[in-house]
Parts: sequence; C-alpha cells; structure tokens
Amino acid sequence: MNKQAQIGVAGLAVMGENLVLNMADKRISVAVYNRTTSKVDKFLAGRGQGKSISGHHTIEQFVATLERPRKILMMLKAGSAVDDFIRQLLPYLTEGDIIIDGGNSNYHDTIRRSAELEGKGLLFIGTGVSGGEEGALKGPSIMPGGSVTAWPAVEPIFTAISAKVGNNEPCCAWMGKDGAGHFVKMVHNGIEYGDMQLICESYQIMKELLGLKPDDMHQVFHKWSDGELSSYLIDITRDILAYKDLDGSPMIDRILDTAGQKGTGKWTVNAALDQGIPLSLISESVFARCISAQKETRTTAAAILSGPTPSFSGEKEPFINALGKALYCAKIVSYTQGYNLMRSASEEHGWNLDYAAIARIWRGGCIIRSVFLDRIAEAYHQDKTLPNLLFAPYFMDKVNSTQNDLRLVVATATSQGIPVPCLSAALSYFDSLRTARLPANLLQAQRDYFGAHTYERVDKPRGEFFHTDWTGEGGDTTSTAYNK
Amino acid sequence: MNKQAQIGVAGLAVMGENLVLNMADKRISVAVYNRTTSKVDKFLAGRGQGKSISGHHTIEQFVATLERPRKILMMLKAGSAVDDFIRQLLPYLTEGDIIIDGGNSNYHDTIRRSAELEGKGLLFIGTGVSGGEEGALKGPSIMPGGSVTAWPAVEPIFTAISAKVGNNEPCCAWMGKDGAGHFVKMVHNGIEYGDMQLICESYQIMKELLGLKPDDMHQVFHKWSDGELSSYLIDITRDILAYKDLDGSPMIDRILDTAGQKGTGKWTVNAALDQGIPLSLISESVFARCISAQKETRTTAAAILSGPTPSFSGEKEPFINALGKALYCAKIVSYTQGYNLMRSASEEHGWNLDYAAIARIWRGGCIIRSVFLDRIAEAYHQDKTLPNLLFAPYFMDKVNSTQNDLRLVVATATSQGIPVPCLSAALSYFDSLRTARLPANLLQAQRDYFGAHTYERVDKPRGEFFHTDWTGEGGDTTSTAYNK
Repeated sequence: MNKQAQIGVAGLAVMGENLVLNMADKRISVAVYNRTTSKVDKFLAGRGQGKSISGHHTIEQFVATLERPRKILMMLKAGSAVDDFIRQLLPYLTEGDIIIDGGNSNYHDTIRRSAELEGKGLLFIGTGVSGGEEGALKGPSIMPGGSVTAWPAVEPIFTAISAKVGNNEPCCAWMGKDGAGHFVKMVHNGIEYGDMQLICESYQIMKELLGLKPDDMHQVFHKWSDGELSSYLIDITRDILAYKDLDGSPMIDRILDTAGQKGTGKWTVNAALDQGIPLSLISESVFARCISAQKETRTTAAAILSGPTPSFSGEKEPFINALGKALYCAKIVSYTQGYNLMRSASEEHGWNLDYAAIARIWRGGCIIRSVFLDRIAEAYHQDKTLPNLLFAPYFMDKVNSTQNDLRLVVATATSQGIPVPCLSAALSYFDSLRTARLPANLLQAQRDYFGAHTYERVDKPRGEFFHTDWTGEGGDTTSTAYNK
Repeated sequence: MNKQAQIGVAGLAVMGENLVLNMADKRISVAVYNRTTSKVDKFLAGRGQGKSISGHHTIEQFVATLERPRKILMMLKAGSAVDDFIRQLLPYLTEGDIIIDGGNSNYHDTIRRSAELEGKGLLFIGTGVSGGEEGALKGPSIMPGGSVTAWPAVEPIFTAISAKVGNNEPCCAWMGKDGAGHFVKMVHNGIEYGDMQLICESYQIMKELLGLKPDDMHQVFHKWSDGELSSYLIDITRDILAYKDLDGSPMIDRILDTAGQKGTGKWTVNAALDQGIPLSLISESVFARCISAQKETRTTAAAILSGPTPSFSGEKEPFINALGKALYCAKIVSYTQGYNLMRSASEEHGWNLDYAAIARIWRGGCIIRSVFLDRIAEAYHQDKTLPNLLFAPYFMDKVNSTQNDLRLVVATATSQGIPVPCLSAALSYFDSLRTARLPANLLQAQRDYFGAHTYERVDKPRGEFFHTDWTGEGGDTTSTAYNK
C-alpha cells in the first residue's frame, strides 16, 4: 500500500484491532502501530490481511503515512502510557494535527492533555468508545469531546464506524470541550456497573430464595428481554444462563464469584463525591465487586456469621413479576443518579451536555444499550432543563407504579438474608428523595453541639445561620475557619 | 511575658483558641499568632487574659519567642493555607525545628509535606485532633504521625492536653510515619459520619413510624446512653432532644434538615475506593448529607412520588428495643469497615498501625468516644492480626445475636417508606460477607462476554484465567492491555 492513510491507530490490543477492522470494513484506510512491533506483523498476517491497513514498526514511518491534518487514534491503557506515547508522537506532528485518545482515560487527564496540546497548536480529542470487543468490531457507541475544531475532520470516520440505531442514526455525537467525552463515558461505565449488579442481585434472589436453576432463569431473562427491560445486558445474561460447559452442565455454575474491576466505576463515585451528588447505587455496585474479591474472608464468615436460611412459600410467578418491576424501578433510580451527576459536572465545567443526545447515542453499540434509553431521550427532548429524571412524567409514573414491587423485593431479601446492596440503595434514595423532612435537623444539631458548625431554622429565611450554646458552657465562637 | 514559649500556635479559630487555653491550663507557655492580628489582641484581652500566653503580630516575632527546637502547631483551614503558612515560616526556622499540622489535612498532603520538610532538615508532624471545640478545650483525642524523631519533644505537651480515660490514660499515641495520623483521624471522621447518620435513621423511625415526640425520644436515648450504646453522640442526642427553644417548644423541630459537610467523610470514601475496601455505610452517610442538602428537590419530590404512609400497629417498646440492638449491630459493621480500611492502608503505606491503640485513644476526648471502643481495643489486644472485626468472639456473638433485629428494622422501615440508607448498607454488607457464593460469577461471565475480561473457575486453582467465546463469533484475543 502506497497511498496515504486517512487515520492512524496506535495500540493493537483487542479494542484497537477491532476498531481498525471496523474502519477497514467501511473502506477507511488505516495505518497501524504497536510498541511491540511483532503484534503489527501478526495482525497484518492474520485478521488484518487483505484490507486497507498498513502496518508500521516506527512512529516516524507511522506518522509519515497519514493524510494531513493527521488523525492519530491511541487505543492504549489509560494512564502514563498515553502521556508517554504523546511525548513520542510530538516530534513528528505539525500544527493542526489531531491526537485522539480512545482509551478509558480519566477525564481529569483529558482536561489536562487538551490544554497542553492546544497550547502547542495541536488538537486533541478524548473519546469514549463503548461496546467492548464486539462493539468495537461491529459499531461502538462513541462519545468524543475536546478540541471542537478537530471534530469536522474526525466526524465522518467516527460516524461511519459507530453503531446505528433506528433509521440509520449514528451512535456518535460531540459531547463538549476538554473532558466531556471521557466524563460521559465514565458515567456510562458507572451505570454499567450498577446495571450489572442489579441483574446479579435479581439472579441471586431467584437462585437462593426461589431455588431456580440456570435453565429456569434463562427463561425468566428470555421473557424480560422482550419487555421494558429489553437491553444488551439482559440479553447476554439470558444467553449466559443457557450456556453449557463441555460436560453439559451450566457454565455459570463453574465460574468463580470474584469480580474484577479496572477503575472507571470507582472514578464515577469519586466524581460524585466531588460534585456532592448522591450516587449510592453505583457506589454499592463498586463495593459489591470489592466484597466479591474477598472470597477467603467470605468463606470464613459464612461458617461463623448467622443469618436466616432463605425459604419462600408463596407463588413464584408473581414474585418473579414483582422482581422484574423492582429491577426496572431500581434501574430508573440508578440512571437518575447518573444523570444528576452529569448535570452537576456539566454546570461546573461548562460542557453544556445534551442529555437527550447522550441517551440517544447509548441506544446502540454500547454495553448499556436498551429500549429504556429511548424514554430518557424523550424525557430530555421534552424538557432540556429537567431537574431530576424522576420528575419526567413517564418515569414518575413508572416509579410510582413499581416502588411497591421494589419495596416487596428488598423487604423479602432483607428478611431472608440475601444481600441486595443496589436494590436497597435504590429504595433508600427514592424514599430519601420523597421525604420532605429528613432527619438532618438532628445531624445539624449534633454538628452545632460539638463543633459550633451552626444551623439554619425552618422559621427563618435560608442563609441565616444560628448557633446554640447547648451545654451552657461554650462561647459564641462559631466554626468558620477551621475545617472540620 | 519575657520568657520563651514552649510551643507556638498559629490560627485562632475556635479549635486553635481552645487548644491554647487547654495548654495554658496545663501551665504550658504558648505563643500565639493569627494572620488577622486583631484576633490575637482580642483573644489576649478576652478568654486568653492572665494566662501563660504571649501574642504576636508578625511571624518573625512569633517564631523568635519559641524554645529550641521550635514547635509550631498550625490550626489552619486544610489546604493551601497550610502550604502558604509553611512557606512563610521557613525563613525563620533552623534544622530540627518541628512544624505540626493540627488541622484536618488530607493525608496525601501530609505525606507530601513530611517528605518536603524532612528534605529541608525540618521535622513535621501531621496530627489528628478530635473532640470539637469542647474537646480542644478540655482534652481532645490526639492522633499524631510524621517524623518520629520529633515525637519525644512534642509528646509531653500532647499528653498533657489530651483527654484522659480510665486510670489517667492519655488519649494520645504515636500512629506512624508521614500521613498515618491524619489518615486515622480521617477514618475517625468517616466513622463519625456513619454513627451520626445511624442515630438520625433511628430518630426518623421513632418519629415517623412510632410517632414519638422529642421528649419521648429523649427518654429512649437516655436509656441507650446507660447501656452498650453509651457514647458521646448518644449523650448529646439525648440532650438535644430535651433542649427547648425560647418559647418552650423542642429546638430540634426548629432546625432545618439540610446537613453540611466539609470533606473528611468524602475523603474516607475516596480512600476506601483507592484501597478497594467496601465502606458502604460511611458512603451512604456522606450521600445522605448530599440528599439532605437538596431540600427544594425533595419538597417537589414529596408531592409527586408515591410511597406508603408509615403506620405501626404492634407494641412500641419491643420495637424500640429491637431498634437499639439494630443500631448496635450496624455500628459494629461500620467500625468493621473502617478498621478494614485502616488495615489495608497501613499495609500499603507501611504505617504498622496499632489497632488496639487507636481504639484506646478514641475512648476519650473525641466525637465517637464510647464504651464500645473498649471492646475493639480488647479484640485487637487479643489478636493483633485479626483479619476482620466480626471474627473477634465478642463482636461475632453480638452481630449473630442482633442481626435479626437489624433485619426486622430494615424490613419494616423499607416496607413503611422510611429511608434507612445506612442501616440497609450495614445489613447488605453483613449478608454479603457471610455469603460464600455471591452472584459475581454472573458478573464475571458478563464481563467475559462483552469484554473478554476472562474469569476463574471453581474447579481450577486460583490464578488460572479462562475465556469463553460465548457467541461463537469472538476470537481468542483477551483483554489484557486495554483498560476497561
């Protein structure tokens, strides 16, 4: 191949390889580079053979083969590898060239890199790419942000390779400046953590309380995959539950119950803490993975800590129906929390996020794709300034009509000793939100008692602060400068 | 006053002032400085009058008055104010002088400052000081860490001003190098968040479900303050509930239910996420404060979101007893999570924390002081390497005998629409921990399905990873380099 390539892709792990094949399928010419150069040769001799792909063993050669402005997509492990590669690229780039980070970088890094590279006259895009290996190959959901002037040059390629839904609508849209794309992708991943854990808790209830076997549960998920719960994660759960090991037994029973994680769930919770936004469901899903990893401790604990032996005496069918509704209700709460987080961050960073567009591009390609997202897109289409997803008519009706199912499921699991951290967190948030008077008055009294932190009063305007000398021994000094 | 001062205190907000008065009461000579110098004069003309306290308007004069090695305690707002003040101090210090940060600094900053100052030949102590304004005045719990060679010079002063418990045991002990003291103080504050929220949830249940009035609840907390729940926070809650506004109505009903926070709870959760340690109860307590602050949203939500109207038909007395036991059970879980966090961080940072000593110095002076901490001290005294607090005989028996009370309370509150995020989180953790087989096998199957993340098998040794081509369409490429 002698002609110039439209885009370069650096990093040939599974996501990088599959994105390259996706591009080649769309007749986009791609140059590829990988630090371990044998990977380049192996790829071109294997899956990449006979396509519009050129391989390179040096960064210089790789860059030289690209059309101007150069577009270089990095598919690298997030962190220092990205900074290192950018440093190696810089000597070969010229003003207006575009560096694209398609890894799961932390949005703080993306904000920093945007500023640094724009300061050098280069353009930078940090883009979320969701859909795992299958998505990357067949069409992922793409969430780009960064230097907006780079977008027109990149848009045709990203649009071509992205998933399509409905009437050929691409699952790709510009998110906003600097870290907007990676932030939205991070929240996507956090929501994914929550969705997965909710499904796991539903599975655990059916398995331990109702005594269902994998084939029975396959049927339940099969039914759910046709209704309002219809989503990629429900679909794959259905398939997983039917999958048999070589000896014909259910594969699911052979898999060890210790979950891994690589950080984006944790980042989402950190962002929520920074923004002061309750993200309790996703937090519990992150912690659930941590507890699962403590397999030995749990095995010890199981032998010495007491709890009820789960037993279920009623009709299973209605309970399974309630479980499906509880799952949907909890899912609505989780997305509400996730959207609140995006709203808060968008305001702080000036991203001007388009919430309807985010829901639309998540409808295809990515892990959390579902029919449910159509509803979210509608809600934000009808009211761009919606303060809380639960206030949209559709979701308000849905949670109001399913909250009793969630209540039943949580109360039952709780009584029967089955851990449901995320279902519980959903209900706690829902009940907290609809409680006009929470017990934080007592908390403020305590803080004022021991730390003179002051409080506001129900019979005075907001913003007026009062201090009580509760013991008769304190002074009138209040705590303003000391950071408690 | 012409003689040199034994210690200098910079920062005369309420905590600084009260620590100075505490020192003066112990016949320790103190030099004081405050950026707004009028505060120095006001203090010396007021509460500081006629004591062994000298006031200074310049840092030079303040430092010049100190005995060598100089000991300078900063009681400043955490963050850049501390770095700024250190920068201003440096020109006046000589090798071996000791800078002490007694504010609520982030332990990452303390680790950094330790290294920086030790690199300049100075010594640095980052110390937790807990007890609020009353503790600072009458004897706080003190958690110092940093340059261990500075400790002998500071120990007599810190020991003198610290709270004493039992047979005159000081609530002060060396925690470990660099950030150990501030880390332990941070976890203390996180636990404090949890304890406060658990009390608030108990209050809410008694108020909304049982219909108790503040005077009734005062009686309940009065009873609790005599038993195993006996603690400072229970005591002050008892007093708060009895406190009347000027017109004779309960003050608690006049206080607005929007809680503030200043960051240490959030930091504790950040640390837990970094360590991969489930800290779900404290996380929920942080989020509970966030939700409480959304007063307007909650008022709107209360009008449009559905839930049951709480009603209670049984005998109140037994339920209140169950509530007390549930509270104790949840508290044990919260401390278990907090101690797990300290253990993990201690191993990572090489602090070699003494868990029994930590429990001992928390028994007096600080906000979370309680008889309960004697039990924790005993547990770690008996087994320094205790892997989980719930495995200690006393706590195992206690949670085993109270888990059903916690279950009853959570199931009842859940059914009745009263939000109990922390009580629920405690139960979810307890039930997760005693579940030898969690549903994370499904989660791993999902991750392997969409991201080729691999899984371990129950019938193979740990550390062997497997990948299934679930759809029959994927390759044998697994996800090792790409950061999902």
